Amino acid sequence: MDAYELITRNAAEVVTEEELAELADDPDGKHAYVGYEPSGVLHIGHMLTATKLIDLQKAGFDVTVLLADVHAYLNDKGTFAEIRETADRMQEQFIAYGLDESQTEFVLGSTFQLDEAYTLDLHAAELETTLSRATRAMAEIARGDHAKVSQMVYPLMQALDIEYLDVDLAVGGLDQRKVHMLARETLPELEYDVRPALHTPIIADLDSGVGKMASSSGVTISMEDSENDIEAKINDAYCPPTADPDPDGDGNERENPVLQLFRYHVFPRVETVVVERPEEYGGELEYDDYETLEADLEAGELHPMDAKSALAAELNALIEPGRQQLNA
Amino acid sequence: MDAYELITRNAAEVVTEEELAELADDPDGKHAYVGYEPSGVLHIGHMLTATKLIDLQKAGFDVTVLLADVHAYLNDKGTFAEIRETADRMQEQFIAYGLDESQTEFVLGSTFQLDEAYTLDLHAAELETTLSRATRAMAEIARGDHAKVSQMVYPLMQALDIEYLDVDLAVGGLDQRKVHMLARETLPELEYDVRPALHTPIIADLDSGVGKMASSSGVTISMEDSENDIEAKINDAYCPPTADPDPDGDGNERENPVLQLFRYHVFPRVETVVVERPEEYGGELEYDDYETLEADLEAGELHPMDAKSALAAELNALIEPGRQQLNA
Repeated sequence: MDAYELITRNAAEVVTEEELAELADDPDGKHAYVGYEPSGVLHIGHMLTATKLIDLQKAGFDVTVLLADVHAYLNDKGTFAEIRETADRMQEQFIAYGLDESQTEFVLGSTFQLDEAYTLDLHAAELETTLSRATRAMAEIARGDHAKVSQMVYPLMQALDIEYLDVDLAVGGLDQRKVHMLARETLPELEYDVRPALHTPIIADLDSGVGKMASSSGVTISMEDSENDIEAKINDAYCPPTADPDPDGDGNERENPVLQLFRYHVFPRVETVVVERPEEYGGELEYDDYETLEADLEAGELHPMDAKSALAAELNALIEPGRQQLNA
Repeated sequence: MDAYELITRNAAEVVTEEELAELADDPDGKHAYVGYEPSGVLHIGHMLTATKLIDLQKAGFDVTVLLADVHAYLNDKGTFAEIRETADRMQEQFIAYGLDESQTEFVLGSTFQLDEAYTLDLHAAELETTLSRATRAMAEIARGDHAKVSQMVYPLMQALDIEYLDVDLAVGGLDQRKVHMLARETLPELEYDVRPALHTPIIADLDSGVGKMASSSGVTISMEDSENDIEAKINDAYCPPTADPDPDGDGNERENPVLQLFRYHVFPRVETVVVERPEEYGGELEYDDYETLEADLEAGELHPMDAKSALAAELNALIEPGRQQLNA
């Protein structure tokens, strides 16, 4: 796999392919960044981006993880001291999950987002950005009567973060695409360079395959889960014998979250997935790539229950180092 | 005239009367504030507020004039060094116009508006304020497709200025009322005290009496005007023999700007207005208060042309010290 393939594999979107190709030409020492509000426990969203960051590190990138303590502070997540402790725990979890410590820098937002130059640039961006453009950058769900002025300001801060952290590539879930597109318009207006963006897919809801997997709306997977938790959650997961299920009775699009977890979480990290099976049911299966596993599931060669058992084992192995650290 | 009368005379609005009455009970050392983007030359808008600030100083208030260099910088008015020079000139003009130097402090916005604590509070205010509320605080004319995110952020900064300058009273033209009403909602949400506001009237367009007098839309009066300029402008001014003219042919409300200038600019500063008139036209007239002058104009005892001549002489006398400084 060449650098471009490694950097862009499993990405839901890259903006633009040309800019990514240019980075892939000489990836050594390039900087990718992702930002999170500090939380002590990594969940599926963090892990998905982390897996992409590990790809980027393998390709030669250095990674900056922005821990947005200013936003956590404003969202009443505690004092700055408390939030920094949470950020420290998150940092350890990222390393335990597999980020290369020598290629990863963790930066607290408060170390630069309250500086005079940044604040002036933020006001300049506010002056350049129309309300209608800022509204387009907001998540659909955030619009309406309850939307706050901060929801117009935060995306402009994210644009400035890209400049002030001096990154070459912005990484985020697909939910960050509007923010990154706004950043691509905002940065040149402040006479800064445009940076490319890479967006990871969203894993579907584990129980139904409809909508996104999120702790707020149902079952999620996190480093706090015990082995039994993971086994029970995956055992109950929606897993028809196809990667492209029909819509549900209400016409909602459905995905196969079990296959998605194999594709986006397991295969990027694991050489060979072993499916343990009693001899009478066909014996052990080995998969060196996702596509073969998917094909076997679709063909009936791999039963969904056996796929789930293998997935639970793989996820538990990936989570184990972080879990140990949480319980230390 | 008691302190409450002096403090509130000629105000278009006070919010609230009870809070102003409380300040008037013990005005010594209380702080009033007004904010401007630095400009080297005082014009009619500055002068009107300045006249009110002089009233407040007579009543015992100290006055803080905020010179908003950060906003000037963002609006491309030059480097910070250049803007500070402009601010220095404006400061001299205010003193020349009659503010008591010992009771006046001039503060540059950049001395506190870029500090960490202020920036954090601004983000907190952005998080508390809905877009719909921020939109209501915007001037009508500023809404629509071209409105910028900054127009939602600046009113929140003005709210914080009131807290960070530790003022007891916010003063501004009637065009500031929405901003001050938003400040009254925002400050308690950040657990700061609500402060009262006092709004000065808007002087009507000099030529027509319709709309507001503003350099952008017609004739204005400023410290740059020569004696002849003032005489010519006032000579051409709209001045029917009434304080309450009928609407114009298009149904637009009209004011009498000559009477307004007497009322809001001259009488607060001058004991006696003398109208020089040849003996054959009735000889010299003296007015100790605005009401008598208005009554004489309405009754035909004072001809509009004579009122204009007297007004031009009074304005020239008020402007003279600042004019000398500008030409020094």
